Amino acid sequence: MKIREVVLTPVAFADPPLLNVMGVHEPFALRTVLELRCEDGVVGLGESYGDSAFADQARRVAAELPGLDVFDLPGIRRAVSRALGDTVVADRHGLIGGASIGKTLASVYSLFEVAALDAQGHVLGRPVADLLGGKARDEVEFSAYLFYKYAGHPDADPDEWGEALTPDALVEQARRMINRYGFRSIKLKGGVLAPEQEIEGIRALADAFPGHPLRLDPNAAWKPDTAIDVARRLDGVLEYLEDPTPGIEGMARVAERAAMPLATNMCVVSFADIEPAFRARAVGVVLSDHHFWGGLRDTQALSTTCRAFGVGLSMHSNSHLGISLAAMVQVAAATPHLSYACDTHWPWKDSDVIVPGALDFVNGAVRVPDRPGLGVELDPDALGRAHEDYLRCGLTRRDDVNYMRRFVQDFEPNTARW
Amino acid sequence: MKIREVVLTPVAFADPPLLNVMGVHEPFALRTVLELRCEDGVVGLGESYGDSAFADQARRVAAELPGLDVFDLPGIRRAVSRALGDTVVADRHGLIGGASIGKTLASVYSLFEVAALDAQGHVLGRPVADLLGGKARDEVEFSAYLFYKYAGHPDADPDEWGEALTPDALVEQARRMINRYGFRSIKLKGGVLAPEQEIEGIRALADAFPGHPLRLDPNAAWKPDTAIDVARRLDGVLEYLEDPTPGIEGMARVAERAAMPLATNMCVVSFADIEPAFRARAVGVVLSDHHFWGGLRDTQALSTTCRAFGVGLSMHSNSHLGISLAAMVQVAAATPHLSYACDTHWPWKDSDVIVPGALDFVNGAVRVPDRPGLGVELDPDALGRAHEDYLRCGLTRRDDVNYMRRFVQDFEPNTARW
Repeated sequence: MKIREVVLTPVAFADPPLLNVMGVHEPFALRTVLELRCEDGVVGLGESYGDSAFADQARRVAAELPGLDVFDLPGIRRAVSRALGDTVVADRHGLIGGASIGKTLASVYSLFEVAALDAQGHVLGRPVADLLGGKARDEVEFSAYLFYKYAGHPDADPDEWGEALTPDALVEQARRMINRYGFRSIKLKGGVLAPEQEIEGIRALADAFPGHPLRLDPNAAWKPDTAIDVARRLDGVLEYLEDPTPGIEGMARVAERAAMPLATNMCVVSFADIEPAFRARAVGVVLSDHHFWGGLRDTQALSTTCRAFGVGLSMHSNSHLGISLAAMVQVAAATPHLSYACDTHWPWKDSDVIVPGALDFVNGAVRVPDRPGLGVELDPDALGRAHEDYLRCGLTRRDDVNYMRRFVQDFEPNTARW
Repeated sequence: MKIREVVLTPVAFADPPLLNVMGVHEPFALRTVLELRCEDGVVGLGESYGDSAFADQARRVAAELPGLDVFDLPGIRRAVSRALGDTVVADRHGLIGGASIGKTLASVYSLFEVAALDAQGHVLGRPVADLLGGKARDEVEFSAYLFYKYAGHPDADPDEWGEALTPDALVEQARRMINRYGFRSIKLKGGVLAPEQEIEGIRALADAFPGHPLRLDPNAAWKPDTAIDVARRLDGVLEYLEDPTPGIEGMARVAERAAMPLATNMCVVSFADIEPAFRARAVGVVLSDHHFWGGLRDTQALSTTCRAFGVGLSMHSNSHLGISLAAMVQVAAATPHLSYACDTHWPWKDSDVIVPGALDFVNGAVRVPDRPGLGVELDPDALGRAHEDYLRCGLTRRDDVNYMRRFVQDFEPNTARW
């Protein structure tokens, strides 16, 4: 089943002013949508980062693909490698652990691997999960992803979620999100306020939602001693503490003293990081993300390596649309060793590029579609609107830092601040 | 695609008196052949150990499978687990690192996973390699597997290979095998003669076949100090030294001093062994074997874990027939990180259960079939003959030790003897 044409469409969708260690989300999140158009009208879909630096590399690869077979994943990987050479796409937003040649290759390849697997599924009439070893579960559990946030973007009305800068407001945000989606696990994006305040936020959530597993992710905002202190104070409250401090060495120092496992999507972000991190016993949970781990098959390989070392697996999320959610659901379904509910930004968006209804949250989980491929279908009108939003919004890269300076003039990232 | 009927056929095929650390091969090698008969006439093939203890467990599983879908590999794995409970099938022949509950599950599951993947391939019209991520190579390289051997079995004529107990005879054996199959890499099964003599054997091979990568596998016949000494004397001669001494601790001691990588299919034989062995830097090469690593998908997972730790991957072989070779070829084709030629006992047999011609050795390599599934077809007459040989030979388990006592009355295994 040969690839005939590769169509890449940059899109944007409205995003609330969500706060993190690097600043605040801009009014639009950017994504790239891929259509791998093959013989016989088969189309494979992919979705990934929308920064122009990433999209430029995807376009270089796209030119190499026509004529390749969608079953020839090694050939597609070679084409990516050939097109990219030693290119490094910088990780400007600083939330997923820096950039490297290997991670750039893995990220760009992932976009095309997912679309090739979707196309394979359509050719074979099987869901992608079946091409990944079969469904180990019928539904995939996700967590409520809470953010400190401003009420609205400058010069705009407050959004429906309103401001969240206090423990009470976090509880209110969680309640609204859980009522709507049924999530059990709750994750708070931290690294925004002083650790003392974030501890209070977590305690308030623990009180309001007894029995709900809790996570806190300050994105390396703390020095190791602070992290050790927070871990001590939240012992018995958190199921895991995510990236409390930068780097494998710092994480290992904290892990030695923390009662709960440390999770990461910052210090273990490629296969090259595994040996040093695992030797140092720096992490107890890896947050996989097929977008930068090299696709769905390599995400499964990561899972096996984690299992062999007694390390748990969860799943990281950036702002994303329905194609990415479908890919997350398919790989999560087919990966037996996935020990925690996955993260998703899903509740924070109100538009998409896929035909609605394919992926629904019930009791915090998405039922794995039994339809061929990823199980989702592109909505051409919605794609057109999202592309117009991309053109109209004028953004070409994610830059939470500079946008934050519109709220806090002298803002600097909070990395290792406390 | 539902499984309707599971047919397990014990078979035997003639085997020469090949020597190893545990004694000598009996006149017949035993295997189990599996036919997974599904709806619409689809049949998936599998092949594994023929010991009655293994076959008994396979039969327990077989009873659980009708009604399951061949795409539901997690469901098949659960059925295996349910049927076996805490059963441990003993590793009586002592050449693949002992037994455990986990390894028993992995071994029995593997038989059914391979057949399910073959069936999937037939349903989808694709080779198994395509279900494993696509072909990373078009042909799979194998090594010449040399054995010290007796001229023939007691009360039987010498076989075509004749006696091999000297360096000259090894060179002659290698020449015959290389002429016939075109192998580049050469492996000598050691642990039979004193280390001094096996070093001479390797040196003779190095002289006779310059540029051919060489391996020596004494199956843990040596104490660590002996292994360190042999490694020193064969520095620059061996591409790897396989299982020179028993256990992770001993291997780590040797690995620290040996210039060449140490390979193993004895101290790392399940995912549970990986963490201790890799932490101790005990091995530089793992010899995968889908028969006990849990099938083709878990063999690929093993490969990824090895790659992450800079550990090489090769492939181990027991005496086997064409279904197993086909499975080895498909998984090797789809596994990018396979850093050495694979082992095979193929040259030592002169019959099979598959229709001939599907798998040919050219220049030491087998071209990956593009036919659906494993790419091989059962020959019902040949299967019938092999089953009759099984009934007629009277063997029900492999026992090289006791058979060796017909040659050397007071023989004891050579494990850690020197």
